[in-house]
Amino acid sequence: MTLRELTETDLHQLEIGAAILGTGGGGNPYLSKLRALEVMRAGHRIRLIPPDDLAADAKVVPLGGIGAPVVGVERIKEGKEGLRALRALERHLGFTADAIACEEIGGANSMEPLIIAAQAGIPVVDADGMGRAFPEMQMTTYSIYGHKSTPSAMSDPHGNVVIFEHAISELWHERMARATMVSQGGSSTLALAPMSGAFTKEFAIPGSYSKAIALGEAVLAARKERVDPVAAICAREGGRMVFAGKIVDVRREVTGGFVRGEIGIEGSDQFSASNGEIHVQNEYLIFRRDGAIEVIVPDLIVVLNADDGMALSTDMLRYGQRICVLALPAHALLRTPEALAVIGPQGFGFPELTFKQMAGA
Amino acid sequence: MTLRELTETDLHQLEIGAAILGTGGGGNPYLSKLRALEVMRAGHRIRLIPPDDLAADAKVVPLGGIGAPVVGVERIKEGKEGLRALRALERHLGFTADAIACEEIGGANSMEPLIIAAQAGIPVVDADGMGRAFPEMQMTTYSIYGHKSTPSAMSDPHGNVVIFEHAISELWHERMARATMVSQGGSSTLALAPMSGAFTKEFAIPGSYSKAIALGEAVLAARKERVDPVAAICAREGGRMVFAGKIVDVRREVTGGFVRGEIGIEGSDQFSASNGEIHVQNEYLIFRRDGAIEVIVPDLIVVLNADDGMALSTDMLRYGQRICVLALPAHALLRTPEALAVIGPQGFGFPELTFKQMAGA
Repeated sequence: MTLRELTETDLHQLEIGAAILGTGGGGNPYLSKLRALEVMRAGHRIRLIPPDDLAADAKVVPLGGIGAPVVGVERIKEGKEGLRALRALERHLGFTADAIACEEIGGANSMEPLIIAAQAGIPVVDADGMGRAFPEMQMTTYSIYGHKSTPSAMSDPHGNVVIFEHAISELWHERMARATMVSQGGSSTLALAPMSGAFTKEFAIPGSYSKAIALGEAVLAARKERVDPVAAICAREGGRMVFAGKIVDVRREVTGGFVRGEIGIEGSDQFSASNGEIHVQNEYLIFRRDGAIEVIVPDLIVVLNADDGMALSTDMLRYGQRICVLALPAHALLRTPEALAVIGPQGFGFPELTFKQMAGA
Repeated sequence: MTLRELTETDLHQLEIGAAILGTGGGGNPYLSKLRALEVMRAGHRIRLIPPDDLAADAKVVPLGGIGAPVVGVERIKEGKEGLRALRALERHLGFTADAIACEEIGGANSMEPLIIAAQAGIPVVDADGMGRAFPEMQMTTYSIYGHKSTPSAMSDPHGNVVIFEHAISELWHERMARATMVSQGGSSTLALAPMSGAFTKEFAIPGSYSKAIALGEAVLAARKERVDPVAAICAREGGRMVFAGKIVDVRREVTGGFVRGEIGIEGSDQFSASNGEIHVQNEYLIFRRDGAIEVIVPDLIVVLNADDGMALSTDMLRYGQRICVLALPAHALLRTPEALAVIGPQGFGFPELTFKQMAGA
């Protein structure tokens, strides 16, 4: 079994790659990266294990932060909430975790598993449950393919611990956990019921950490060599640039705990004859060109600052910004009928729309 | 050890007594009484144990419904949520409950412990933690005198189970439990960490069930004999009628999960020269005569329909109703400095007011 030990450089590259895979949401990974660096500098080792190296009966705990990204940007974590949640779950169920799994590689939740696994002295599986970011916790390949995520344990920066012992569905688990998290101040950490190594191998999206780190590395290399980072991202991910232009309209509001809105873009260069529009629901969900849908969830819509190729999250968009819009294909595990029922257009309130993989992917 | 087994008549009398001790809040005990009768008719026995008969190391679980009374009136319970919560707590902590304790004798929470204890085949302590109704769960003599109410277990009519494993304070427990309950639909049942028999003997308000049943019996007897039920209540409880008249003003709103408001009363008979006012915050908290405070929480303010002596909860008050206002003295355990800090005027947002026991109690 070969474990890959992450370096500080890996974390900086992961930050860039995770922001791209966040597709506008998932929370800014910057603060979490600082905490991961701090944990590493305190002597804890951050190690990745390939899913294929897991024992079939290994106990793998999916784990991540839960909360509104806007709270996570302002509220500093206490530092031990994740480890506290993990330990409470282990005590409640009477087991010891062998590895930690990432639920969401996009955004800040790429970093949380690394921090907690390092504190616990166990590796993180080089995989995740979304291959991107999604707003709710039942939207993982783990839940979609049958993992029952309760009992789970949640802790907050104050030291409170809540165990969700039984939920009648994954959606009820999400509802209760979200309400409890809000009462805890808006930013908690949740450790889910362990998955077996065999299940993780079959249903986790493999290689997510390696891929996000390599993506960050490619962007940094392109910047250094003064070549186009957009081309580097598309080449690595099999995606393409679907639009470029200037933001001319930002309609955005926070309702029901979600950021929702529409972003209007006036095309430039080869797109100057068109207008683009992006529908936002925490993440970028739909890209339309002149009113016609061209890219739709679960395919990834990435918005980059045209100047430096930096990924822009939904809260960073401003009138007048020059942006590029990229489309990257979703992993095959996100495109099955079972998956599309949860994270396809109907999962986001568009029953009339059908997922169609973007052309040329 | 002599256990008192309750009869159907006892439950009807308890309903009346519990409504009086609800001081306007606590939820209508009617629906819960129907469920208690159903459990009794299914062959389960409802038995009371005097606190003095508890073994010092007995495990006594305080238990009750949590939710907005207005939801409880419309939403039917599934029937096993309380037993499910009790069993989840027992499994989590590895113990078996010897008896159930009532948290709140006023209103619907007088009935819940009876139902669940009967289902579990164990007795209910003839005592409670409030001697009346209060809106929040840290407002019990149990919490006030040092019982740590976590770990606790909550269940809802759907079958979801949540364990509050650790709260940094009783107030944080209340906050998290209330938020989780709302996400479960507004009406759940919560079993708290067990108290010892010795603690229960010292800090529970003794005889609450016997007293509430006797109160209901006295009211029914007075009605039957066509004598004044108000006098019967005051005689039993050492209270007095402080006002009578017609409701001329009902200002009431639901804010922050509480019913708040002011009730204006125009005096009649011997009170015809005065005006009365009652401040409501779920329960009746303050009675003023011509602007001067005369009765204040934790003393009990009871509003009765002048015609039949039926207790009126805050949601039942209407313009033009003829009512009597009674003041009953709070139990000594509610009048210590520790207790007043939690359930005195400052516990309800009146730091400038001081509890003064009503004259003549």
